[in-house]
Amino acid sequence: MSSLPIVRTKTELRARVDEWRAGGASVALAPTMGALHAGHLSLIGLAKTQADRAVASLFVNPTQFAPSEDFDAYPRDEANDAALLGAAGCDLLYAPAVEEIYPSGFATSITVDGVSRGMEGAARPTHFSGVATVVAKLLIQCTADVAIFGEKDYQQLQVIRQLVGDLDIPTRIVGAPIIRAEDGLALSSRNAYLTEAERAIAPQLHRTLCAAARSLLNGASVAAVEAEGSAALLAAGFAAVDYFEVRDPDDLTRKGPDSIETPARILATARLGRTRLLDNIGVRLPGAEFA
Amino acid sequence: MSSLPIVRTKTELRARVDEWRAGGASVALAPTMGALHAGHLSLIGLAKTQADRAVASLFVNPTQFAPSEDFDAYPRDEANDAALLGAAGCDLLYAPAVEEIYPSGFATSITVDGVSRGMEGAARPTHFSGVATVVAKLLIQCTADVAIFGEKDYQQLQVIRQLVGDLDIPTRIVGAPIIRAEDGLALSSRNAYLTEAERAIAPQLHRTLCAAARSLLNGASVAAVEAEGSAALLAAGFAAVDYFEVRDPDDLTRKGPDSIETPARILATARLGRTRLLDNIGVRLPGAEFA
Repeated sequence: MSSLPIVRTKTELRARVDEWRAGGASVALAPTMGALHAGHLSLIGLAKTQADRAVASLFVNPTQFAPSEDFDAYPRDEANDAALLGAAGCDLLYAPAVEEIYPSGFATSITVDGVSRGMEGAARPTHFSGVATVVAKLLIQCTADVAIFGEKDYQQLQVIRQLVGDLDIPTRIVGAPIIRAEDGLALSSRNAYLTEAERAIAPQLHRTLCAAARSLLNGASVAAVEAEGSAALLAAGFAAVDYFEVRDPDDLTRKGPDSIETPARILATARLGRTRLLDNIGVRLPGAEFA
Repeated sequence: MSSLPIVRTKTELRARVDEWRAGGASVALAPTMGALHAGHLSLIGLAKTQADRAVASLFVNPTQFAPSEDFDAYPRDEANDAALLGAAGCDLLYAPAVEEIYPSGFATSITVDGVSRGMEGAARPTHFSGVATVVAKLLIQCTADVAIFGEKDYQQLQVIRQLVGDLDIPTRIVGAPIIRAEDGLALSSRNAYLTEAERAIAPQLHRTLCAAARSLLNGASVAAVEAEGSAALLAAGFAAVDYFEVRDPDDLTRKGPDSIETPARILATARLGRTRLLDNIGVRLPGAEFA
């Protein structure tokens, strides 16, 4: 049994955080949608290195799912999540109901241009507006000193950095490295959707990104790296490649087709059945740093 | 000479507010676009009744002006404004440059649905998104306990109430009553644009709203009150009536054409030459309360 305290309202959350802060403690928040795996727990571990107290939030945010997407099917097991968080050293779980976040009459939405364009923004046109709105609310509700987001959703991380800078939200954003299975597959709650056959193909996404990073460092053009990456994924058995792109690691602008500049971030999303798998890798000279 | 301290950056602003708060003082913010008149100064007076310290901001926000509007021509006289604020008991002026509010690469915008629809939202389609974004920034930058906005821009006030509630911004919003010239014209920085002949017609806007409120209280239908109000303004010499509408005072939904329910708010915008004049009035039974 976990003894992790759980609060359901922003009022209780803020009271707890204010109490900690009055005692001189700093506070880190790790927002999650639950269905926790070792990747999420690493956020708590990182939070504990960045602040005195670690808060996790658990909220499956309806507004970042399109009507056709898996909001209803998204895995939910709060009791198990709370036990995992407690064991990982989390100090508080904020698990609000949908009505606490979006009360009747809610009418505000936040959009972030630039970094939201293309890739996930193209595949899921309303997704980042849903993310930006809920993250702004969570950060303003919690008033954390630091908030931790995983690099697995790298474009989301950059959207949040832009959002927080633009709205002057006084929370420092920290990206957490991707946590992978032994065969290289980036951990994701949606990996649970994979069949055994799909799960066997899935690690090729990371391997293909590693190969692409090496090609880029060896002087291949961006256009060649992108084309070869997509082709390799299709050859490996992925049903479709939504994108395989070399981008600037900060503002996510596209790299010119002949560019071999680094640093860069290579981001890809490919499909196995109905499951979209996201992954990405950092590329930086001198020497390959495969983040 | 005013000795009002002026800060130009959010960092200085927050440092000053944090210092006050550490000393146990509460803080009220009155956002303005400068060109101050007695209406603005009443915001400072109200601020001083709501908190221990009053901060005014002065920022002519480019994003709430459409390209065809009067951003460049908008009257600016910071030295005079600072002197007036100092005399009114203001404790601090925050007067940031455009680059402090919108640094290079700024990409975020906030929209508020519902209360933003129709009226000013119809006449100025990008206006309230510009207002919502800058107000969210100012409130988050300042971390004031209370913020004061004039009821002259009544729809704007309701947009801001919705915004602040939806984003959980921990600042209480207080509306300040409209301040009028002796002949009833609501004070506005844009009254400076009026010719002498237009200025003579302008008070008919308030008189027509008062007459409409009396008609509504006497049992006239919403449809009749709206039609008669528009007709009266055109007969008085206004060049055009953008709208003359009876609305719910909170969510600004339209009142049914046969409704005589109160409370209500009657909102109107009419044009004299190129100048748009806004005004509004509250209607509440029993007894006419002409706010």
